[in-house]
Amino acid sequence: MEVAVVAIGTELLLGQIVDSNSARIGQVLAANGFSSHLQLKVGDNHERIVAALELALSEADAVITSGGLGPTQDDITREAIAQVSGRPLKEDARVRSVIEGLFAARGRTMSVNNYRQAMVPEGATVIEQRKGTAPGLIVPVGEKVIVALPGVPYELDDMLANEVLAELRARRSDTTVIQSRVIRTWGLGESTLAELMAPRFEALEGSAVTIAFLASGIEGVKVRFTAAATDAAVVLGLLDEEELRAREVLGDYVFGVDDETLEGVVARAALDKSLTIATAESLTGGMLASQLVRVPGASTWFRGGVVSYARSVKEDLLGVVAPSVVSPEAARAMAEGVARLVGADIGLSTTGVAGPDELEGQPTGVVWIGMSANGRSAARRVQLLGDRERIRTYATATALDLARLTLSGSSRGFELG
Amino acid sequence: MEVAVVAIGTELLLGQIVDSNSARIGQVLAANGFSSHLQLKVGDNHERIVAALELALSEADAVITSGGLGPTQDDITREAIAQVSGRPLKEDARVRSVIEGLFAARGRTMSVNNYRQAMVPEGATVIEQRKGTAPGLIVPVGEKVIVALPGVPYELDDMLANEVLAELRARRSDTTVIQSRVIRTWGLGESTLAELMAPRFEALEGSAVTIAFLASGIEGVKVRFTAAATDAAVVLGLLDEEELRAREVLGDYVFGVDDETLEGVVARAALDKSLTIATAESLTGGMLASQLVRVPGASTWFRGGVVSYARSVKEDLLGVVAPSVVSPEAARAMAEGVARLVGADIGLSTTGVAGPDELEGQPTGVVWIGMSANGRSAARRVQLLGDRERIRTYATATALDLARLTLSGSSRGFELG
Repeated sequence: MEVAVVAIGTELLLGQIVDSNSARIGQVLAANGFSSHLQLKVGDNHERIVAALELALSEADAVITSGGLGPTQDDITREAIAQVSGRPLKEDARVRSVIEGLFAARGRTMSVNNYRQAMVPEGATVIEQRKGTAPGLIVPVGEKVIVALPGVPYELDDMLANEVLAELRARRSDTTVIQSRVIRTWGLGESTLAELMAPRFEALEGSAVTIAFLASGIEGVKVRFTAAATDAAVVLGLLDEEELRAREVLGDYVFGVDDETLEGVVARAALDKSLTIATAESLTGGMLASQLVRVPGASTWFRGGVVSYARSVKEDLLGVVAPSVVSPEAARAMAEGVARLVGADIGLSTTGVAGPDELEGQPTGVVWIGMSANGRSAARRVQLLGDRERIRTYATATALDLARLTLSGSSRGFELG
Repeated sequence: MEVAVVAIGTELLLGQIVDSNSARIGQVLAANGFSSHLQLKVGDNHERIVAALELALSEADAVITSGGLGPTQDDITREAIAQVSGRPLKEDARVRSVIEGLFAARGRTMSVNNYRQAMVPEGATVIEQRKGTAPGLIVPVGEKVIVALPGVPYELDDMLANEVLAELRARRSDTTVIQSRVIRTWGLGESTLAELMAPRFEALEGSAVTIAFLASGIEGVKVRFTAAATDAAVVLGLLDEEELRAREVLGDYVFGVDDETLEGVVARAALDKSLTIATAESLTGGMLASQLVRVPGASTWFRGGVVSYARSVKEDLLGVVAPSVVSPEAARAMAEGVARLVGADIGLSTTGVAGPDELEGQPTGVVWIGMSANGRSAARRVQLLGDRERIRTYATATALDLARLTLSGSSRGFELG
């Protein structure tokens, strides 16, 4: 079953916000075996929205829209759907009363605009607005259907996972199961990775499994396998086999699959070994700690950290006595110092030059990662490319990767005995 | 002049990466007065890429593609463009030698796949690959043109700003200047903002200026004015007037325009007043410090911070002696403690419950922001909604906003004398 995705909002065309909704809709569709080959963006213009919906309906069995259901004057998705479906808008008493209730509960008065959100195409099914004021809409158009979701990711995700998937499943006739597995790697370039995987790429040509490589910034380079079959167990078997083969070829450049993250892997290793972690950061400025704290329950194994941005903070608080703050000595002393200061088993540190200007005569992109454990420490130099933000994020990911490798005993990690 | 945008890559349809390239292309087009009403995504499939390019060529004067120019076997944009343009691929000796040179300089051996990147449609202009191995392509198709750019943002941006804009400008006949200005706000909901601006929205109906509201997460709610005229000075005048009117209505809920950020405004205020800042973070876990460090030259005014995630770190390092760590007393003591510890004029702190579990009997989303200056301190409670990551990012932005308001002497800021 083919599902088209139409993201609505002039701000998307102008690039003032990135269309992340379509990506999340695409993920959910793929994970549930729906095809989606047409995904487009359209601005807040009645005729253009109508044209986009008509194109989408001509190419797909169902259309999911996001955006344009808000209370403001430029939110006109309702009107466009009414025209395309031939179902005039009528006020829905139930939706109106829910919106009134939401405002009353927050002690706020309802604006006139909010009543527009109670307008519903005749014969449409309303998806209840559990998380916001905009209801979703399921609007039949002949044998096909338009599903309209609010553009707020928080509200959209909830409706998508529940009412929308249920509606699409009920309409599906074919039973092909399509599923992907993503092998997550850090430390290899995209073309090196592709070359290592080339024999498998060729062997899979024409089979039920496809392979793709995705350079994903701080998330590393991903290898995605997608398998299709009529039986879910067969699909799972194919993906398991490809994961096994990929791990054989790529070794511990693989840090996880699918949603696994570098920080999640570090967290699990710390938990398994009952170790606590602390961070000392210069150029990353708190980003390394913040990535670790993303993991729910971090308080079990993460003690805290110091952002030693000024030189005197490195010296006074962490006991750094190195001639240069961009040096292995500084990185090691920071890692040791923070572990001592907050009482953690492991210290992890970053110091380097994020740019735009050089520092102590060293060029932008030079970064030292330090790590300490059991009173021993080590440091490693990396040379990163790009602008300030890219260097900071790659330094953060590299530190997480080195922690992961060291905790797993890899020969590519630090030797801390 | 109408420019269509086609983002190429199955990973985009599957949502494994978000299509941020189209957004950045859209920004550059809008800022330079090009219209772009058709923007779509297509997977790595020859027939579908060909169909997408043909649709785009039928609707626009020029088509910009991103992605599918890499060295791996799923990169097939070159072949699709060759078919659509009727220009067969030939190896370009110059491109080949540049790629060979890049690999030699890095001391790496070139993979067979990399030679595919030297294949160029006959009669196309090559955009030199200054930042990567993939050259861009400018391929005339009758009176129209397809511009193919690599999917790596870093490489794409550089070509877009230079060769691509030059090519599009040379092809443009109409001289309408279209420009936008974005008013950046924090602290008001989208519908409240829209209501405050409703009189202006109505007055602008049918004029040369359009207005839109964009809820943008940690970046706040944006109000975008777009003006069109044949004269650049007229456009600028219209935008200046709208900015002035918006600032009158919205007061200091406006923190800046266009690319100005909350952290940038805080940085400027600190510089202007020759004040130094330090951070003490619990639930935000370093994110607040990291946002501040995004600002180039932060070392002038940012001293550093403590991520006091564990209770004992709050107590031992920052001197917190509050019965609950989620309290105004804890927030104030953290701000005071970190300013003292690292020798800063201003301390800024966050403590609260990011979830998923409650903490010390307090529910997810309760956050206290603290600030200290001149030995005085204050704290404010906010109640945030959403998941762990949303609560952490909103707590970070709220802390930055309170610092901004306080430093500018706003009545909505802290009173720190």
